[in-house]
Amino acid sequence: MKAGTPAFVQAVEAALTDFFRTRRAAVEPLGPVFVQAAETLVLFVLRGGKRTRPAFAWTGWLGAGGDPTGPDAAAVLKACAALELVQACALIHDDIIDSSRTRRRFPTVHVDFEQRHRDRGWAGDSEHFGTSVAILIGDLALAWADDMVHASGLEPAAIARFAPVWALMRTEVLGGQLLDINGEAGGDESVAAALRINRYKTAAYTVERPLHLGAAIADAEPRLVEDYRTFGTDIGIAFQLRDDLLGVFGDPAVTGKPSGDDLREGKRTVLIAEALQRADRTDPDAAALLRASIGTDLTADEVEHLRAVLTGLGAVDEVERRITDLTEQGLAAIESSSATQAAKQQLRAMALAATRRAA
Amino acid sequence: MKAGTPAFVQAVEAALTDFFRTRRAAVEPLGPVFVQAAETLVLFVLRGGKRTRPAFAWTGWLGAGGDPTGPDAAAVLKACAALELVQACALIHDDIIDSSRTRRRFPTVHVDFEQRHRDRGWAGDSEHFGTSVAILIGDLALAWADDMVHASGLEPAAIARFAPVWALMRTEVLGGQLLDINGEAGGDESVAAALRINRYKTAAYTVERPLHLGAAIADAEPRLVEDYRTFGTDIGIAFQLRDDLLGVFGDPAVTGKPSGDDLREGKRTVLIAEALQRADRTDPDAAALLRASIGTDLTADEVEHLRAVLTGLGAVDEVERRITDLTEQGLAAIESSSATQAAKQQLRAMALAATRRAA
Repeated sequence: MKAGTPAFVQAVEAALTDFFRTRRAAVEPLGPVFVQAAETLVLFVLRGGKRTRPAFAWTGWLGAGGDPTGPDAAAVLKACAALELVQACALIHDDIIDSSRTRRRFPTVHVDFEQRHRDRGWAGDSEHFGTSVAILIGDLALAWADDMVHASGLEPAAIARFAPVWALMRTEVLGGQLLDINGEAGGDESVAAALRINRYKTAAYTVERPLHLGAAIADAEPRLVEDYRTFGTDIGIAFQLRDDLLGVFGDPAVTGKPSGDDLREGKRTVLIAEALQRADRTDPDAAALLRASIGTDLTADEVEHLRAVLTGLGAVDEVERRITDLTEQGLAAIESSSATQAAKQQLRAMALAATRRAA
Repeated sequence: MKAGTPAFVQAVEAALTDFFRTRRAAVEPLGPVFVQAAETLVLFVLRGGKRTRPAFAWTGWLGAGGDPTGPDAAAVLKACAALELVQACALIHDDIIDSSRTRRRFPTVHVDFEQRHRDRGWAGDSEHFGTSVAILIGDLALAWADDMVHASGLEPAAIARFAPVWALMRTEVLGGQLLDINGEAGGDESVAAALRINRYKTAAYTVERPLHLGAAIADAEPRLVEDYRTFGTDIGIAFQLRDDLLGVFGDPAVTGKPSGDDLREGKRTVLIAEALQRADRTDPDAAALLRASIGTDLTADEVEHLRAVLTGLGAVDEVERRITDLTEQGLAAIESSSATQAAKQQLRAMALAATRRAA
């Protein structure tokens, strides 16, 4: 089974569904309120998504010699699918932090419970209630992620190899989120700061460590782990840079988000950092305009004008150049690695899909 | 080494300190902002506490035949100490949920970061920033709790026995917290609801599952696990009932909390549920008074009057009776169990300390 195919996505979702079923015995004795909360988490996780992290982990395992028809394959798939529960925690808590009202066209978890509280005319502050419930549901997802690894059926020695990488991954993503909110609050505008957030919040968490986890399960040689990690870091950062460009220049009909949304939200991306750095050197008026307008409620015309400024400063070309360089470096690392031919081909396709996409 | 002694507390803190040292390699590459956040968690965990949960886990292991001078003892102690990291997550997130400003005389984590944000004159809402950072630091504690179990040096077979109990414990405590905030918001006044919250938020998490975890490490026979669980549930609930009484009748000089604080906070305890149930049957004026005044900013005289009402309704005697019954039942279960004599003695002492204390 190849990662990224509908069959793979379906298998990941089946593994999650099976796991959720095994939790019922722990959830039901607490009564209907907790059953409903757990059900909210289940729906959130099963509502969709590309299952990107399980796909990289699974491909990392295959590329290091894992046998998809062998006796371990089902357990490996379950351990890979557990990444979706870490992701559920990250999204649910991030939505609180970013004060996001919707995700995938549904109310975010904290907004959902805020509304339930209000609809029932309950005592206390509805918004605080929603936040409180969403904190706990996110915690449940994080705890269940570990439980799913343990219950996967992976042999204890494989779990012991998996655990330190799993530890690094969760520490890194939480660190990346912390840097992100600190950078936004503290106004760190440097390219280095934006790149560091990309590295830990996105690249390590989305590509590098998932591949590394797959390699750890397969007991891969250290050299292959190194090559996976180089590929993962480079492609992961390039993926985020593409995302940053789409957040400003993407076609709303394709991305599903309002045009220029990242500019209105004031996201501190490498693109913006690069533009500010250039403007400070060559065009103080443009620098002042960017600082004054990013993060405000921009009209469509203003968004259009800011786009022209970013392009005129050469920031867009610079980010495109970085994407190209990182993609080439990442692909070269995987090309010369000891990964299986099938995995190389798969990772190449995933890398190009991640860095050349339009949505 | 006996649980509850200064030597035990010191050993738990040394295990935590060692673990924190091993995290540095993962934390430092992310830079000073994350180092400071991790340092906040370290200080929070090491600031003190009775290490109750590790004490029950350790005693559960000893009582099932664990050898404190044997080769596994150091690893077992580390796994037991990891419970303090689950507790750190629970407290940090609970303090957000309860809007608590201080804990152990220090600002709570969210208030600490709220103040740092304000002191630095950073962009955005200080309160939201503090909450966001505290959500992430609590998540880090929860992730590290698992990592500490894995890095404890417990043999894989012991970790495999430990994992399902660890899973139940975390699901139960999160479920208990959810029931608690739902009960408060939804105004469920029943004794059954208050007891269910006690069962899962306190008893299972503080006594029952820690003992069960120790038993799982020692590969105890199922009968002993049953007896531990009966003891843990009964003593854990009795412990919380004592806490409820102290929250209303405790001497501020001994408890360190303002007198009658639970009444001002409007905590939905078994004591209050019992009083309301009795008042509804026999004394509608008292019922109306309780409903109108609990959870408001009461004067010392009003607190004094409410105490007399609770006593007059017989609710205090009823809660004392429950504490006595539960303590006797719990002690009987442990007395007739196959636990070692030393563990029986220790658990008896811990049970009495938990249920007869004045603070």
